[in-house]
Amino acid sequence: MRQTSLQISELTGGQLSGPENIVLESVASLKNAAASDLSYAEPRFQANALQSNAGCILVSAVPVEASANRSFIVVRNPKLAFAQAATVLLWKPQSGTPIHSTAVIDPSVTIGEGTRVGAGCVLGQNVKVGTGCVLYPRVVLYPNVEIGDNVIIHAGAVIGADGFGFVKDGDRYVKFPQIGTVIIEDDVEIGANTCIDRGSLETTVIRRGTKIDNLVQIAHNVEIGEHTVIAAQTGISGSSTVGPRSIIGGQVGIGEHARLDPQTILGGQAGVLNGKRVRGGEILWGTPARPLKEFLEQQAHLSRLPNWIDEIKRKLGLRGKLDS
Amino acid sequence: MRQTSLQISELTGGQLSGPENIVLESVASLKNAAASDLSYAEPRFQANALQSNAGCILVSAVPVEASANRSFIVVRNPKLAFAQAATVLLWKPQSGTPIHSTAVIDPSVTIGEGTRVGAGCVLGQNVKVGTGCVLYPRVVLYPNVEIGDNVIIHAGAVIGADGFGFVKDGDRYVKFPQIGTVIIEDDVEIGANTCIDRGSLETTVIRRGTKIDNLVQIAHNVEIGEHTVIAAQTGISGSSTVGPRSIIGGQVGIGEHARLDPQTILGGQAGVLNGKRVRGGEILWGTPARPLKEFLEQQAHLSRLPNWIDEIKRKLGLRGKLDS
Amino acid sequence: MRQTSLQISELTGGQLSGPENIVLESVASLKNAAASDLSYAEPRFQANALQSNAGCILVSAVPVEASANRSFIVVRNPKLAFAQAATVLLWKPQSGTPIHSTAVIDPSVTIGEGTRVGAGCVLGQNVKVGTGCVLYPRVVLYPNVEIGDNVIIHAGAVIGADGFGFVKDGDRYVKFPQIGTVIIEDDVEIGANTCIDRGSLETTVIRRGTKIDNLVQIAHNVEIGEHTVIAAQTGISGSSTVGPRSIIGGQVGIGEHARLDPQTILGGQAGVLNGKRVRGGEILWGTPARPLKEFLEQQAHLSRLPNWIDEIKRKLGLRGKLDS
Repeated sequence: MRQTSLQISELTGGQLSGPENIVLESVASLKNAAASDLSYAEPRFQANALQSNAGCILVSAVPVEASANRSFIVVRNPKLAFAQAATVLLWKPQSGTPIHSTAVIDPSVTIGEGTRVGAGCVLGQNVKVGTGCVLYPRVVLYPNVEIGDNVIIHAGAVIGADGFGFVKDGDRYVKFPQIGTVIIEDDVEIGANTCIDRGSLETTVIRRGTKIDNLVQIAHNVEIGEHTVIAAQTGISGSSTVGPRSIIGGQVGIGEHARLDPQTILGGQAGVLNGKRVRGGEILWGTPARPLKEFLEQQAHLSRLPNWIDEIKRKLGLRGKLDS
Repeated sequence: MRQTSLQISELTGGQLSGPENIVLESVASLKNAAASDLSYAEPRFQANALQSNAGCILVSAVPVEASANRSFIVVRNPKLAFAQAATVLLWKPQSGTPIHSTAVIDPSVTIGEGTRVGAGCVLGQNVKVGTGCVLYPRVVLYPNVEIGDNVIIHAGAVIGADGFGFVKDGDRYVKFPQIGTVIIEDDVEIGANTCIDRGSLETTVIRRGTKIDNLVQIAHNVEIGEHTVIAAQTGISGSSTVGPRSIIGGQVGIGEHARLDPQTILGGQAGVLNGKRVRGGEILWGTPARPLKEFLEQQAHLSRLPNWIDEIKRKLGLRGKLDS
Repeated sequence: MRQTSLQISELTGGQLSGPENIVLESVASLKNAAASDLSYAEPRFQANALQSNAGCILVSAVPVEASANRSFIVVRNPKLAFAQAATVLLWKPQSGTPIHSTAVIDPSVTIGEGTRVGAGCVLGQNVKVGTGCVLYPRVVLYPNVEIGDNVIIHAGAVIGADGFGFVKDGDRYVKFPQIGTVIIEDDVEIGANTCIDRGSLETTVIRRGTKIDNLVQIAHNVEIGEHTVIAAQTGISGSSTVGPRSIIGGQVGIGEHARLDPQTILGGQAGVLNGKRVRGGEILWGTPARPLKEFLEQQAHLSRLPNWIDEIKRKLGLRGKLDS
């Protein structure tokens, strides 16, 4: 939705420097921007703003004089202001019917106003989807799954498949009942081909505002707190809880019945053991996950170990090299 | 399918204590159960059984007197008995046609009695599916794939895609023929968005009773033995074999041409090298995978290393701190 | 497409030994081959060629006399010659319409000659697909994605979903615009359920000849160089570049803004940190990734550490065992 530079400055609460009437139609990086684009410069890349052809640039301080065909808007956080302005600039009235004709939707399903359901989606019995959601093509919602408002689910995601629960009977495995459901709260985004299993006897819950990347696995009975981000290919095992405002890197593995405090931060590929309680507020890394400082110190010692052992052995007159 | 407390006691071979005629219609956890639910208490949670509203509870010992509206059934393994009873209680006659009208099924496909094929499934040429299977929406079976009886395949799983095999020709890669197939034996369950590749010149085989979680990758020519469980996001590379009755954790990586003995147990995120033979019967962890006790001992030493090196150096009068 | 032994020798530039007129209709392993099959023997398995029933065998040296019903063809690289010959032998004229009737294709899409689009594929606005491509069932191409010639995309792959980019606004996350696209160059193969995200403001690019396995995650703005192979379940984070002719093992994790030189080789489960520059030409392993030799040496030291510490402590008269 076309905006003037003045409108963008009002929208972002910024200080306009230069013409008020520059017409902006889209957004772009500094490098790719044309005269009708809004762009932004992070403080350390401010110099690049001078070379850009953008019609208007969000900055934290004005780098040069604005000109007749370029404005700057000074804001506290240019990247955030850019993301907020982009929401308005890129908004388009949706054309066509909101529910694609190839979507398979059980008659019992309820779908809120403004929600779009893409080609080939499958929504099972008693599924509820709120208002303003986007389901991209081929999303599967198993029966009874409940989706809040303004939720985005990318192609191929599967919500509500059976949890992975079996009971051993001699050599064989007997399926444990998987009759719980999944609740996805408002403003959640779920990546392509991600899987979120239904609860076994309880409910799997993804709380408000949480963002989940592609190919993530969330097992039965898990609860993910509000405003948490989970990067691609991470797996969270059954009955674990992740506290609100946590940041979980890619390919992290979290065991069963683990309990992560609010604001837990886990580096990529970290591993949390079954039943573990994890403290929030600091960065953890490695398997088993430990404080980042500790992990890096151990890695450093490990890499120096051969030399130290050799030195000690020479001093002690011990025979042989370490690797002998 | 509704059952009385007496019927459940007969079904599970347990000892009924309390009324025989309590009518049970579903199952639930102790916490969520209502009067028409069957529940169970594991020995350590036996006390919780007292607070439950369940009409009938499977226990390993009766915690209190049964009452006019609650029975206990004493069994050796309450969780197993609960899973077995749930199969009967939750059984429903399937309504509607078993093959969804949007499934795309080649005319050469054979499908056994009682098998259900969900919306948007695609079954290629000469695919065979046995009796009593459930294919959830959007499962893809490439040509020639063979599925046994009572197999469950969750949404988005892809069985029989080409293996990842190429031969180098200078800088370029030439595709190696991927013309084998996949055989899935009886009673296997396969998770959502899991991929099982066809053999290149041989066959990829998943033996009877094996359970595979979501987002698992099984490469060409792999053979997985009977009654094995494989947790989410694990990857098994080409031509490896996993022995029967193994337990493979989540995010485990197994290299090419590895050979895992029967009853191999691999902890989450463990890594097995190409060509490696892995002994069964004990828990292995880490990359490269080693016995759990060894792995934990090494981790413990690693964490104490800085202090020990410092102490040794002080004693020896060696200059500097380890990290200097 | 049926070939004689003579034709195969000409096709592969090999030296024919034995009858010229053996008719070959397919390919098989030495073990499975019948009289109408072409097979091959790698040098170390040459002895196995004697037991095979194959009508013609590609070898690096003739192991025995050819006979009236079996030829050998001597080539420098039997496996490569086999793969090349298989391309011709297994070629079939495609029957049926190339675009499956259940594919959902926006009217603005352009599709090149000879390209096949499987059941349930979804191709969004302005998608371009070149000639000779195969899209297996249920591939999703988001709007504006561009696919070159002779590209193979396996079932369930999702190309062009939004990148995982958000800007923090207090506790909440605001979506960063994801309006770039994806370009897949010629001769690329993409595995089942793999996800390649669109660029945020730039373009995600997969260069010519690169092969990507199943369940791989490629984030926004990534560029993968030519003739690179990426094994299953690997994840490459936003704005990273992988140099041409690289070999990336399975379950590898690469952080954001990393830069991998040409011919980088990463072992399975290796981890590359955010912003890291990785040198090519040698094998790297572990997290953080380091040269293989170094990694193995450190692992060896780690496993011997308990014994060495004990020995040193005895010598020094230090009290207690290491683990005391």
